[in-house]
Amino acid sequence: MLRCTKCNRVYEEDLRIQCECEGTLLVERKYSSFAPQRRYFDMRRYLPYLPVNERFLPYLHPPVTPVSKVKNVIFKLEYLHPTGSFKDRGTYVTVAKLKELKIKEIVIDSSGNAAISMAVYSAFSNIRTHIFVSSNTRKEKLSLLSSFGAELHIVEGDRMKVHEEAVKYSRENNIPYLSHWLNPYFLEGTKTVAYEIYEQVGVPEYVVVPTGSGTLFIGIWKGFKELFEMGEISRLPKMIAVQAKGFESLCKRSNSEANVLADGIAIPNPPRKEEMFRIIKESNGSCISIGERVTRQALTELYRMGFIVEPTSAVAYAALKFFEDEGKSFVVPLTGSGLKLHSSF
Amino acid sequence: MLRCTKCNRVYEEDLRIQCECEGTLLVERKYSSFAPQRRYFDMRRYLPYLPVNERFLPYLHPPVTPVSKVKNVIFKLEYLHPTGSFKDRGTYVTVAKLKELKIKEIVIDSSGNAAISMAVYSAFSNIRTHIFVSSNTRKEKLSLLSSFGAELHIVEGDRMKVHEEAVKYSRENNIPYLSHWLNPYFLEGTKTVAYEIYEQVGVPEYVVVPTGSGTLFIGIWKGFKELFEMGEISRLPKMIAVQAKGFESLCKRSNSEANVLADGIAIPNPPRKEEMFRIIKESNGSCISIGERVTRQALTELYRMGFIVEPTSAVAYAALKFFEDEGKSFVVPLTGSGLKLHSSF
Ligand SMILES: [Zn+2]
Ligand SMILES: [Zn+2]
Repeated sequence: MLRCTKCNRVYEEDLRIQCECEGTLLVERKYSSFAPQRRYFDMRRYLPYLPVNERFLPYLHPPVTPVSKVKNVIFKLEYLHPTGSFKDRGTYVTVAKLKELKIKEIVIDSSGNAAISMAVYSAFSNIRTHIFVSSNTRKEKLSLLSSFGAELHIVEGDRMKVHEEAVKYSRENNIPYLSHWLNPYFLEGTKTVAYEIYEQVGVPEYVVVPTGSGTLFIGIWKGFKELFEMGEISRLPKMIAVQAKGFESLCKRSNSEANVLADGIAIPNPPRKEEMFRIIKESNGSCISIGERVTRQALTELYRMGFIVEPTSAVAYAALKFFEDEGKSFVVPLTGSGLKLHSSF
Repeated sequence: MLRCTKCNRVYEEDLRIQCECEGTLLVERKYSSFAPQRRYFDMRRYLPYLPVNERFLPYLHPPVTPVSKVKNVIFKLEYLHPTGSFKDRGTYVTVAKLKELKIKEIVIDSSGNAAISMAVYSAFSNIRTHIFVSSNTRKEKLSLLSSFGAELHIVEGDRMKVHEEAVKYSRENNIPYLSHWLNPYFLEGTKTVAYEIYEQVGVPEYVVVPTGSGTLFIGIWKGFKELFEMGEISRLPKMIAVQAKGFESLCKRSNSEANVLADGIAIPNPPRKEEMFRIIKESNGSCISIGERVTRQALTELYRMGFIVEPTSAVAYAALKFFEDEGKSFVVPLTGSGLKLHSSF
């Protein structure tokens, strides 16, 4: 079922993205024990814990991504997914749910990695995806999204105006609006990062996550929490949310220059903010915000270490410098590829 | 030990790349049974079958890449490696061997995916890599290679002249020349593709491989052959080498327009040609050559199917159209990413 994070009301597992009280929703199921399907080395390994039927899964399975241990830091290479970011995990589960529910058309309002992921997966899944974007979006990105067959709707105005137009179009045409910020099935995909970390290296002391909308931060926590509730693990990691200066929703908003380099987390007011606050509190974690200069430095270091990632991935690594790390163990997911997609091939 | 493929002479496992008779070399070891290290989901899984010591392995472990089944074709997503191609498998084993042998400086003469892979891995492994390239190489590629700290040597002249200069520099400065076309340890990395295919889908009827220098074609065959000799499998796949028109070394050289789009296999006279001929014969396989127009068509189809790959990957898929595929099963490795690396970040 789906449970409201605000009023606890429950719903059937359909395509709902908010409670009637406007609270955000999470999928809730009872699992008695952790038994991965060991013959698979991709997300099908965790099928018993996904709220979808195997026969609706797309054939483009996100892999179990590798981990790299460098001193006391374990990097989780979440950029080695089919479209170059961890978003493929969320898309994978979402597309399976859409197919199960026989939904063939959706509306979204993102132009980043989540939109690229959805455009690619929906192209071969016979789902028509309307993407609402601002007229400020770079032409290169627009032509890329449309090259995968996505239906672009270009809106004059800011991010808020784009959102309003998407919701309006969705209502007027009776096509589901499926923001990945709200979509509870998206988190069912990202939670598998925790399952993999557990199978690969056990439960770390800290998980340090670039955090804007929270799709990865909340997903990882949910995964560990489920393992805990199944009795598979006896302690939980401390969750560290790393944000971009000028776009803090959990840390204190800074007045210094905004970190626009980490564009994947430049989200000042995410709808799942309250959930994230609770996770920081419950896990005994914290929040830290990172500026553009240290992000750039961290990115250069990551490249030299062999990790070809995008700037958003670098903020979590940058954050480690602000910890006393004597004897502590950190897992840092590297969220998006530094290899870039072109529409001209 | 290393065994010459021409005269059968054997050598110790050092950094030799050719027999004194000029024959090519393969690593030869006896394995009694197939027992992957199941706690790993990356190349360490096959450590018992790699001619290197665990403590010299780079931390950037190539993953078990996912497979995607589309009708009767199983795609193996070899583009989801840290530097975007299957070459990382060969580099991984090679770098471990270099560290074991305490070699801190090498010479290579490639400017493609193999060079990018070696540049990235050597950057964090404290190995100085001299890359000899033609002055015709695109500036973008040169600046990329040097951004990872590789030492570039730009040579006026064709591919043959570049090769001669590399060998000359290697001799004069007593730095090992390590062409991945000849390097036997490189194949020890690529052979793990066969182990993974076997664990993921069993032994297919056909493996259809883009083939230039043969580092993937020979590696996959070697992996299956080892499984056969361990008694793990009872039959072998038919090996289909797919080449680019105008650059055939195994198929009949065509006079039609050359396929320069598939630049990763545009190698008219590979040193391991005789080995490849023997594999085609022994496996009851064949060779097929593919033109530029069908390569481009196949690439467009692969994109629509969600596989963001480079043109060289598309030739093997294009080749399927020339088979009668009723009831047959094919494995097609998709060798390189369509996401492109930039040096300016
Ligand atoms: Zn509610
Ligand atoms: Zn010989």
